[in-house]
Amino acid sequence: MSFKHLIFSTDLNDNDNLNEVITKLKQLEINVLTVSSKSDIKSYLAKIDKANSILFIGANLKEAIVCKEINISFGLALWQDTKILRQHLKADYYFRQPYDILNLITSIDNPYKNMKWLTTAMEMQFIAQAGITYSKDVFDQERFHRLSEMAGEIMSEYTDLPVEKVTTLFCNETGYQTPKLDTRSVIFKDDKILLAKELDGRWSLPGGWVDVNQSICDNLIKEAYEEAGLNVVPTRLIAIHDRNRHNLPLYAYGITKIFMLCEVISGEFTANIETSESAYFSLDELPPLSVGKNTKEQIELCFSAYKNPDWVPIID
Amino acid sequence: MSFKHLIFSTDLNDNDNLNEVITKLKQLEINVLTVSSKSDIKSYLAKIDKANSILFIGANLKEAIVCKEINISFGLALWQDTKILRQHLKADYYFRQPYDILNLITSIDNPYKNMKWLTTAMEMQFIAQAGITYSKDVFDQERFHRLSEMAGEIMSEYTDLPVEKVTTLFCNETGYQTPKLDTRSVIFKDDKILLAKELDGRWSLPGGWVDVNQSICDNLIKEAYEEAGLNVVPTRLIAIHDRNRHNLPLYAYGITKIFMLCEVISGEFTANIETSESAYFSLDELPPLSVGKNTKEQIELCFSAYKNPDWVPIID
Repeated sequence: MSFKHLIFSTDLNDNDNLNEVITKLKQLEINVLTVSSKSDIKSYLAKIDKANSILFIGANLKEAIVCKEINISFGLALWQDTKILRQHLKADYYFRQPYDILNLITSIDNPYKNMKWLTTAMEMQFIAQAGITYSKDVFDQERFHRLSEMAGEIMSEYTDLPVEKVTTLFCNETGYQTPKLDTRSVIFKDDKILLAKELDGRWSLPGGWVDVNQSICDNLIKEAYEEAGLNVVPTRLIAIHDRNRHNLPLYAYGITKIFMLCEVISGEFTANIETSESAYFSLDELPPLSVGKNTKEQIELCFSAYKNPDWVPIID
Repeated sequence: MSFKHLIFSTDLNDNDNLNEVITKLKQLEINVLTVSSKSDIKSYLAKIDKANSILFIGANLKEAIVCKEINISFGLALWQDTKILRQHLKADYYFRQPYDILNLITSIDNPYKNMKWLTTAMEMQFIAQAGITYSKDVFDQERFHRLSEMAGEIMSEYTDLPVEKVTTLFCNETGYQTPKLDTRSVIFKDDKILLAKELDGRWSLPGGWVDVNQSICDNLIKEAYEEAGLNVVPTRLIAIHDRNRHNLPLYAYGITKIFMLCEVISGEFTANIETSESAYFSLDELPPLSVGKNTKEQIELCFSAYKNPDWVPIID
């Protein structure tokens, strides 16, 4: 990331983990500052040329408003208190723990920047692959196969990846097989869990396959929005399940399922192509579940993790 | 799992999480008992017919020895104190938190039991897929393609999966693409981290692709053994990284990397086909790293998580 100046609110509690992260940030030649008032920030701003290289990290609504007003990025310190999210506080970044800040700063911002041909080819291949899998029309099948070929041609013509490597590099399909990844966004309100109704009438946690170019949290956020209309922030990991150990029917390949607690920032259900409605349920009044996606035991696990702030993630 | 009797040691501290799990176990009609002595266990044993349906859960070496002596399964309560693992205590099961017990009891023990044809076909396909990817010989290529076809034939002939569904079900390659999964086993001794030397002379954390029929922890254990000769128990999750945000070179498909702290139970390095030696390093004397697999930043992250018992996993 391109932030060069990190400003920490004095409202943040002293925290060993945070102090360690600040030391490391300084080693990366990031300017680190602690401020207590709006005028402090403004006088600091006057000294540096680019507002877009500044990230403010705080834990309350007032600070978020100040940042918006003076047009600098705001990062919310969730480790202080995740309840702040219930105030529908929209931040540019959400940090579950101080080390998340370092993770952001040292992350590659846009891995595919200036590689337009590569991203185009990737998207073409992605569409073709899905079309080949799901389309029932033979002519469409032909079109999707040709699209996949074209994606390969673009890869070898317009990128500097070695030609003979393109196929292996490009397609999951020819590489080493690993389990597929699925995420489930676990959202509570008034101690009830959110489920979405699928077109077959059964209910599941918002979720689905992780897109090949997305991270776990990206997908948790995307699926909560697509299937339940909600803008969420993933907060705590509940479990990583090996699907064939928990869900039926059995599949002839592995699926790794990631369940994560999310807090709602805003939004409401809107009709969409995958789900017809959503609602919150208590454990003793669950509707018919789509058990291939989430069993009663998995829903119970979510309730337990929700109730226990010191939850240690289950990992199969 | 087929355990019908769970015996808890009185040495386990009172723990809300444990009490909740015990309540749920009783709802599953599991017999739950708390005992304080060997003779208590023996008198209980005399009353039930099958020793193999009993699981004892304790937190010390003496209890593990008693279980071995009277031939019942022993599960180690790691939530009590993970330091117990440094005594090289070999248990049948390791529970990071009480809910792991419920996870074991409600897991499908052997998902592919009595489906010999299915597992054979899966393994054939798995070998064929790897051969097609890595073999440079055209005749071998032909053989691997034929092997893959045969695997498909077996699937449709000898399993009751609907024929028209076999291809979609069977191969990752024709389904929806998701990121590939990689695990890294993070092992410390005397505050130094274990790295293994690869054949190109660079060093990495033991790890690799998750096999399609394995869980995250299965793979962490397998790779630590294959690449460093160590028997380990995964204890704490460090991070789930989206590879393209942290490691170069860039790949045209997503990779989800899972870093997890592991404790060594036994073993020592033995020569193998992937690594030529292993050694422990402090942060200020790291050898040349295989940065596509683990960067200096990722190694630093491991040190931070190791030093902080309250670490919250980083999740991209």
